[in-house]
Amino acid sequence: MIETLSPAAKVADELYRVLAAGDAEAVTRLLTADFVGETTTGLPLGLGGTYRGAESMIREFWWRLGKTFRVAAQPESFDALPGDRLQVAGVYRGVCRATGRSVDARFIHVLTFADGRIAKLIQLTDTEPWHAALAGADRLNVPASSGPAVTDLQTIDYSVRDNVAQVILNRPDHRNAIDLRMGEETLTVARAIAADPAVRAVLIAGNGPALTVGGDIEYFTSAQPGAFGALAARMTDPFHEAFRILERIDAPIVTAAHGSAAGGGLGFVYAADITVAAEGTVFSTAFSGIGLSGDGGGTWHLPRLVGEARARRMYLENLRIDAAQALEWGLISEVVPAAELRTHALAKAHRLAAGPTKAFGRQRRLLRETWHNSLSDQLRAESEGVEFTGSTRDAQQAIAAFLDKQRPEFEGR
Amino acid sequence: MIETLSPAAKVADELYRVLAAGDAEAVTRLLTADFVGETTTGLPLGLGGTYRGAESMIREFWWRLGKTFRVAAQPESFDALPGDRLQVAGVYRGVCRATGRSVDARFIHVLTFADGRIAKLIQLTDTEPWHAALAGADRLNVPASSGPAVTDLQTIDYSVRDNVAQVILNRPDHRNAIDLRMGEETLTVARAIAADPAVRAVLIAGNGPALTVGGDIEYFTSAQPGAFGALAARMTDPFHEAFRILERIDAPIVTAAHGSAAGGGLGFVYAADITVAAEGTVFSTAFSGIGLSGDGGGTWHLPRLVGEARARRMYLENLRIDAAQALEWGLISEVVPAAELRTHALAKAHRLAAGPTKAFGRQRRLLRETWHNSLSDQLRAESEGVEFTGSTRDAQQAIAAFLDKQRPEFEGR
Amino acid sequence: MIETLSPAAKVADELYRVLAAGDAEAVTRLLTADFVGETTTGLPLGLGGTYRGAESMIREFWWRLGKTFRVAAQPESFDALPGDRLQVAGVYRGVCRATGRSVDARFIHVLTFADGRIAKLIQLTDTEPWHAALAGADRLNVPASSGPAVTDLQTIDYSVRDNVAQVILNRPDHRNAIDLRMGEETLTVARAIAADPAVRAVLIAGNGPALTVGGDIEYFTSAQPGAFGALAARMTDPFHEAFRILERIDAPIVTAAHGSAAGGGLGFVYAADITVAAEGTVFSTAFSGIGLSGDGGGTWHLPRLVGEARARRMYLENLRIDAAQALEWGLISEVVPAAELRTHALAKAHRLAAGPTKAFGRQRRLLRETWHNSLSDQLRAESEGVEFTGSTRDAQQAIAAFLDKQRPEFEGR
Repeated sequence: MIETLSPAAKVADELYRVLAAGDAEAVTRLLTADFVGETTTGLPLGLGGTYRGAESMIREFWWRLGKTFRVAAQPESFDALPGDRLQVAGVYRGVCRATGRSVDARFIHVLTFADGRIAKLIQLTDTEPWHAALAGADRLNVPASSGPAVTDLQTIDYSVRDNVAQVILNRPDHRNAIDLRMGEETLTVARAIAADPAVRAVLIAGNGPALTVGGDIEYFTSAQPGAFGALAARMTDPFHEAFRILERIDAPIVTAAHGSAAGGGLGFVYAADITVAAEGTVFSTAFSGIGLSGDGGGTWHLPRLVGEARARRMYLENLRIDAAQALEWGLISEVVPAAELRTHALAKAHRLAAGPTKAFGRQRRLLRETWHNSLSDQLRAESEGVEFTGSTRDAQQAIAAFLDKQRPEFEGR
Repeated sequence: MIETLSPAAKVADELYRVLAAGDAEAVTRLLTADFVGETTTGLPLGLGGTYRGAESMIREFWWRLGKTFRVAAQPESFDALPGDRLQVAGVYRGVCRATGRSVDARFIHVLTFADGRIAKLIQLTDTEPWHAALAGADRLNVPASSGPAVTDLQTIDYSVRDNVAQVILNRPDHRNAIDLRMGEETLTVARAIAADPAVRAVLIAGNGPALTVGGDIEYFTSAQPGAFGALAARMTDPFHEAFRILERIDAPIVTAAHGSAAGGGLGFVYAADITVAAEGTVFSTAFSGIGLSGDGGGTWHLPRLVGEARARRMYLENLRIDAAQALEWGLISEVVPAAELRTHALAKAHRLAAGPTKAFGRQRRLLRETWHNSLSDQLRAESEGVEFTGSTRDAQQAIAAFLDKQRPEFEGR
Repeated sequence: MIETLSPAAKVADELYRVLAAGDAEAVTRLLTADFVGETTTGLPLGLGGTYRGAESMIREFWWRLGKTFRVAAQPESFDALPGDRLQVAGVYRGVCRATGRSVDARFIHVLTFADGRIAKLIQLTDTEPWHAALAGADRLNVPASSGPAVTDLQTIDYSVRDNVAQVILNRPDHRNAIDLRMGEETLTVARAIAADPAVRAVLIAGNGPALTVGGDIEYFTSAQPGAFGALAARMTDPFHEAFRILERIDAPIVTAAHGSAAGGGLGFVYAADITVAAEGTVFSTAFSGIGLSGDGGGTWHLPRLVGEARARRMYLENLRIDAAQALEWGLISEVVPAAELRTHALAKAHRLAAGPTKAFGRQRRLLRETWHNSLSDQLRAESEGVEFTGSTRDAQQAIAAFLDKQRPEFEGR
């Protein structure tokens, strides 16, 4: 068959070959520097969405997909389209590494070429087989990939009930200080949430006197002299990957903060759509105090939450702000008495779990991608969102309910 | 002549040919993916400015130009410049579709090439013939392009007096709910404003009990079951195009909000430079209530107006905020008693209409483009802005007035 | 040797040749449009960092480097790496223009190619020889480049004591209005700060009744009729270049504002990490009053400091806000009685000068680059930052001090 392939089809065929071989450099050579990948929205693990740049597509899509699925894309036909584009039809075949169940899912790829390389890939696949193969992976002792299994958590208490995933940090005697284990378990839990279609809202909270005081400095000092930087970076890898996954799920996230939320632990606040804080909670980046630049996503979120000048103070002056100040500045959403915190936040998560999950997911995506877009592009993305969400069962039921002057009942689809 | 053209000139010549033929895919093949177009600032319909990416240039510049003008660019000379650039001189010839009046305008294009494609186009043209051909199009029964004519508006009361364009939403018995007609008329009005050099400020307001309650849900339910998404998307097309045009005009925009400003109708608030609200006005995205992701530009504007966390609450929790809260958060600019709203907002529009319109236009452009730029690039753009506005008659008169300790009189040029 | 070079090595060799010849157009032709340069963090003059686009690399890195150093990169070996990359080892040789002292610094460049052009350059060089060659340039009568020498300042009082650089605007009888001389001296001082490793914090303040009223309009009127735009642009060149340099230094900046901070003079507020204002200080962009679009970086900073709507009011309505309002909006950090202003701000600068300078520098860089990055990219940049700062002496000492329950002593390295 190869003999008769067009030049574009040969490049496409080569892409599938080197992807199967896991050869990142060969993949890079086939893509343009400004490559854009648009993957199917409904994929598990938050994998659906837009990836800009070859590196992003490889690291954040193909590499992450490959950690959970041993699957190859098998092309069956190559058809030229106008505008230097190629449509490839085929089948993904393989297994979910954690469950051992097979994946067999049809795909269409539309590739756009520029100067002999692939500049764009639009992927359409039936996402149901992927979810089916993965289902229950989080309840097996075999983890979906490296890191602790969700059944073997030591530092986080994780459960899903009534469509709400509860992520309760649980090193109360260490004020939920984050050591390597908790960093890895945060990732395990993020993967379990992304893989579980029953989850329609997430609650993050902490047992003991504080949400979390941030990185466990005593643990850091176990490093060899001079190796601290490497140890810290090793901890941030799974921890940051968890936030990448949580950023892309449909389900809204509510964080309940009390006592302290400090250092990298502020990542649990930044990850939330809604943060409810107990009166008197103290927020502090704390990094300057130990000579570090900081982790947990604060340099991305803080300027967008509280503005440039306040973000700089919180980093450089190591400013501690209390819940009332955090509310006034827009870092958090509500302040309640400490005794009511968990109940209040959980009730909020339950209300969100009864909402239009697909619309929430699209809103979260639009609000995430807005920083890259011109107003004109974002208006176009909003139109696409209205077309997508307007076709969901939830929207159609809600509009019918509106006519009947009834409250809508959302099913999350 | 073609025989003697250099390879670059052949590509340029091909570009003019396929543009005249309206072949978007052929145009795309001639441009690099990261193409940048810089078009002449003074073009009508807000067409002047910077377009990033081939798709943006085609959809937002050439396509929109072509809807109003049937004009072809006729190249007369091709001269190589250093740095893989080509200077093309020629004439735009054709007619304005609405008025039938001819356009005959000289141009210079400087094209930069990369790997045989066009990576950049700087356009200089005499903008006066374009304005002359278009003048009065908004007062004809023949619309400048599809959509209702400005003389045939049913849902918007539009007028221009003393350099202020008044856009008064006028479906009071439906609380100015936006149906397809109002979406299209918003576009008609935006085009009329952009085409009318007399307009130096815009006032947007609503008759009846509310500025607008957003999309007309009753109207939506007229859609076939399952076709709601498509109907909603059809409504957002002209509505969003209107906001693209209003974003690019020189004249500042004042919106007077009262009663409710909800759903996509918040677009009239986001489009404004200054929003004045009556006491008690309620602002609400409302989309989650009917399972939609949202339109009107809120996912672009809200995070930049009120910060990331408040924007998320307004979408996901469907938060309703009143005028006092909206003022505190920075969504709006002023709150006044309801009885004074229209008078106050109109007076403000008149003050702005007596201001330095060219400087306002450049400030609006700088504030729009800032999100794409590094500080260093933006400083350069500010320098260009100072050079441009410093050469306007308004700046020169104002500086002379300053010396004479007089108030400046701005003429908008 | 050239005879045996690979095609990539020939391109690289050509790059060094045309750089040495100062041929910007030839350099441009060798780079892709989306070229990215990553230069060594520790370079003097704030030159270390990421440059996006060929133009940015040429104008902001090579051109600025060349103004201070007459140095050529002499390649010694070219080695192909996987992924269309090339590693070049060699030596920078030349002199510092101001001191005449020689530079002799080894380098490694890793070049990534795309379609025969250079798409990326990662530069590693020993930065010590650069600092050594430049040391003391700011104390010589020979300036590091054009503009007044730091020993010959007329409009700014500049000193460095106890690791704090004090930049005191000193045209009190003109309320520190900025004329061409002050614009140039701002650049001289910025260069002196960037070149001086002893500086670990900066204080900016003004003598007389105001921090600064902005551009000196009386001076502007000395321009020929019609030449005002050109004169204004000539003033913004050195002034803006100063802010580019101050943006990239490690040392935090504290600005003390009193009386007025207006027009382009607000640049001294925007440049600061922390602005302390005296009660009653008035902040005002003022540009619309004289028909200008504005300079000093406000169109970049204001929307990111106070939000889109407030920024628009400050430009279009020429809104004057007092210190209390500026604090509430997040434009500044603190308000103190006028009598305590200078003492308070200087004490703050001294505290910052005793902090972890390398971590501050990395935090400043992360907060500057965040606007270009997706959350995922920024998380990666934070991980790199933790690895880098975790390896500094300051972090290691601070962690040891933490264990011993001592206060950390930071040395700035």
